Amino acid sequence: MTLVLPPNVSESRFLRALRELASIVGASNVLTSAERLQDYVDPFTPQPQAHEFAASAVVLPASVDEIREVLTIARADGLPLWPVSTGRNFAYGGAAPRLRGSVVLDLKRMNRILEVDETLAYALVEPGVTYFDLHAELHRRALQLWIDPAAAGWGSVVGNTLERGFGYTAYGDHAAHQCGMEVMLANGELVRTGMGAIEIGRAWQLYKGGFGPSYDTMFMQSNLGIVTKLGLWLMPRPEEYRIVHVKLPGERDLEAAVETLRPLRLDETIRNHAVIEGAIRHAAGVSTRTDWYDGVGPMPDSVVDEIVRRLDIGRWNVHFAVYGSADLVDVRFAAARRAFARLPGARIEANRYAADAEPAGGSERNMAGIPAMSAFRMLDWRGGAGAHVDFSPICPFRGRDAMRQYSVAKARLAEYGFDYYGGFTAGERHLHHIVATIFDRDDPKQTDAAADLQRVLMSDARSEGYGVYRTHLATMDFAASQYDFNDGALLRMSETIKDALDPQGILAPGKSGIWPRSWRGKRGDV
Amino acid sequence: MTLVLPPNVSESRFLRALRELASIVGASNVLTSAERLQDYVDPFTPQPQAHEFAASAVVLPASVDEIREVLTIARADGLPLWPVSTGRNFAYGGAAPRLRGSVVLDLKRMNRILEVDETLAYALVEPGVTYFDLHAELHRRALQLWIDPAAAGWGSVVGNTLERGFGYTAYGDHAAHQCGMEVMLANGELVRTGMGAIEIGRAWQLYKGGFGPSYDTMFMQSNLGIVTKLGLWLMPRPEEYRIVHVKLPGERDLEAAVETLRPLRLDETIRNHAVIEGAIRHAAGVSTRTDWYDGVGPMPDSVVDEIVRRLDIGRWNVHFAVYGSADLVDVRFAAARRAFARLPGARIEANRYAADAEPAGGSERNMAGIPAMSAFRMLDWRGGAGAHVDFSPICPFRGRDAMRQYSVAKARLAEYGFDYYGGFTAGERHLHHIVATIFDRDDPKQTDAAADLQRVLMSDARSEGYGVYRTHLATMDFAASQYDFNDGALLRMSETIKDALDPQGILAPGKSGIWPRSWRGKRGDV
Repeated sequence: MTLVLPPNVSESRFLRALRELASIVGASNVLTSAERLQDYVDPFTPQPQAHEFAASAVVLPASVDEIREVLTIARADGLPLWPVSTGRNFAYGGAAPRLRGSVVLDLKRMNRILEVDETLAYALVEPGVTYFDLHAELHRRALQLWIDPAAAGWGSVVGNTLERGFGYTAYGDHAAHQCGMEVMLANGELVRTGMGAIEIGRAWQLYKGGFGPSYDTMFMQSNLGIVTKLGLWLMPRPEEYRIVHVKLPGERDLEAAVETLRPLRLDETIRNHAVIEGAIRHAAGVSTRTDWYDGVGPMPDSVVDEIVRRLDIGRWNVHFAVYGSADLVDVRFAAARRAFARLPGARIEANRYAADAEPAGGSERNMAGIPAMSAFRMLDWRGGAGAHVDFSPICPFRGRDAMRQYSVAKARLAEYGFDYYGGFTAGERHLHHIVATIFDRDDPKQTDAAADLQRVLMSDARSEGYGVYRTHLATMDFAASQYDFNDGALLRMSETIKDALDPQGILAPGKSGIWPRSWRGKRGDV
Repeated sequence: MTLVLPPNVSESRFLRALRELASIVGASNVLTSAERLQDYVDPFTPQPQAHEFAASAVVLPASVDEIREVLTIARADGLPLWPVSTGRNFAYGGAAPRLRGSVVLDLKRMNRILEVDETLAYALVEPGVTYFDLHAELHRRALQLWIDPAAAGWGSVVGNTLERGFGYTAYGDHAAHQCGMEVMLANGELVRTGMGAIEIGRAWQLYKGGFGPSYDTMFMQSNLGIVTKLGLWLMPRPEEYRIVHVKLPGERDLEAAVETLRPLRLDETIRNHAVIEGAIRHAAGVSTRTDWYDGVGPMPDSVVDEIVRRLDIGRWNVHFAVYGSADLVDVRFAAARRAFARLPGARIEANRYAADAEPAGGSERNMAGIPAMSAFRMLDWRGGAGAHVDFSPICPFRGRDAMRQYSVAKARLAEYGFDYYGGFTAGERHLHHIVATIFDRDDPKQTDAAADLQRVLMSDARSEGYGVYRTHLATMDFAASQYDFNDGALLRMSETIKDALDPQGILAPGKSGIWPRSWRGKRGDV
């Protein structure tokens, strides 16, 4: 029997609720044993902190109708539910709920690819569909379309899009390429957004706006509804593409890399989510930390320089792709090469691929729309029970902002004993700066330091006017509190809407710092 | 003194409220005389229908603080307010309110261009800023940026963006190029969306998502708040550009035009909002209807054929632009020309411009980021007191859908005595099909027929699975009722949020078919 109860629910009432849930989804789809719940423990957070994010049970519905019935029980019994698409969001908490004792509503059984339209280049999928699944389906049907995979291909397309994840192709901004949703509200009402509200409509995945206010982005990083179907645009397979790597020798070359990349992104020479990654992250793809260094504390700069020299990589490494017809690829590549060739010491390599050719390496595969799991190699970097937590501030697309974020983060990481393991992924006018703190979760000192460090990094950023786009369960309240214009008016508005749409407060209390009235006292309580 | 009172407000109470409003914004900024209110009458709707949309007064605040005080009075006195940026949205009702007796809150005095960033290519503007204003500012400062103007350059940038208007360049999807808002809620709370919620933030106009749910699109075509500042992305001025015109001879060539254009849009050969316009709309730029025909009823096809021949235009005319460096423009133009040259009878003309060259003609100017007023030439087409109302269904980007929408609309228009005056503007996966019914508003038979026709066109479209993206005040409830999935769940959700954010129901009752609880009985009441 389960060891954790939902807050304010007696054991007898909970047991009755579990029986009712089993009568809806089948007994085998209500998980309560410690063994089965193990998959729903925050994978990278050590005890005792993970204890705060323990689920009381897991329910796996197979359909929208089953979700509706689950909601009826949850409202009646005051059960907080934590919906996850598949819960593979490991750096930010996996499938674990923010509020201890929540029942995880795992949607992975709802895994149909409902539609793929080759002509208009879109798909409609359920939450359980992974990037691997969707890629396999396109391949099976020999459709001339690409997906844009997240870093880890096993992730849910719906889940990653809702969390505003991003990829590597020209369709790398997943939220921007989402079009149309079906959402179940806490009261069991099923809403279709945009043109999906036309019952027999033909444009649900074609035009985002619909008529009147539109709400798709309100359901991102959100606890205002359960997304049960999601439309996304797919990239027409290009005639050919070229993947380019630029190696820059100096630590301060980050600034020039950003200044060079920005105009190429803005004038659409480079259309993909180019990446600028630091030497250590690049090195982690082909080596482990102990190959280079076994001292305590952060790796000295001299060792990083040695890695750069021995692996023949850059201190900063820019990776981008150009896509299109053969002549378009030529023109774009020539313009990008001209620009980067101006940087002192830059070395430029490029690999040309026909449409049906597949790169061998993981990061190149991602830029060619092929999902991979190579991102997990990072866990081997530090050794032990490898885990990471990510600090993810939005950075203005300016060299000086990138240098400032990098320098401040690097110094703080060093102070706490960690290497700077990070990089920047280029949107159009911003960069996603992703800084992974990699630690051995069996080492209490490392795990405590990693946890403390996240708040410090976020405070440092906030004092310079930067905010994170996403964060771990443990820092959701902290992140939300940083978005404090007019004494937190945005969060107040979110909670006003929350209380209107979910008066019993059953959906994902605490998600993104939004607490329903009934649980508001739990804010900050970790 | 004003002739119209707000519903449920006595004259004495209203007079007191007007005095209070005058104490906030100054007496000269509270308009009540019939003469001053004339500017706020629906410009294209004849009496008696326009009577239904009469304002009781107009208030012109100069600042966010003044808006907050106006809201306090409105809440206390139950005054419905109808916010407009500048109210130039003539085909859909101008500045007139949906609910008779509403007080128009005209924001045109708030007309500051708060920021233009050339490096990161964005602007932050207040509601009173027009496309002409913003263009003039870029010109004055010699910034290497383009705006994307709406069809009528006198329109508000904020207003057009919020109504999901569109333009003609690669930044033609105005809603998609919006980033960050400041919004005042009905309770006087000021919210900044996305990264704007970081008090001292640096990325408000750079990254849309922020942390947690995002709401910008919830304030589009909406009555959930008053947008007081809006960020928009600007297009870096291209090195050069080519504007291309394709003339297609046959009525059924629409289908091939759409099928040819779609892959060019999807593979990013053509990045702008290309237009496919019918012969009559094209002819209206250079002639009037009586030059060709003075019979009653719709112009016969034989006359349209004669127009096509004599003006040397196409039955359908495709206009698009390619932008970029000289070689990129060459490659893109060559690909597009190859594709269109395959269509039988296609004639292709192209004009090449250096970055600082300006086209002479209105539609070409729009494709070069220069605002114009040439769209208003259409009003002279029919003669008399020219007016128009637009039927604007979203069309899937497929030839057969475009032909179906065109054929059905043309037949209905003919039945009601009107020419097909329309065209399609190309998004990425959809087309905006815009069908203008042009009438003499001094002719009661024409105006009645035009009004009846709109509902019939919308019903025709709905029965085929199409919905409008925007509509006139008179048909907002009708349009909203077409978005009826699950018995209107989307509208119910909007009204739940409306009641939570605006419990007194003071903001724009009836906008987009959304009625606050206090006015819900007015639905459909025109």
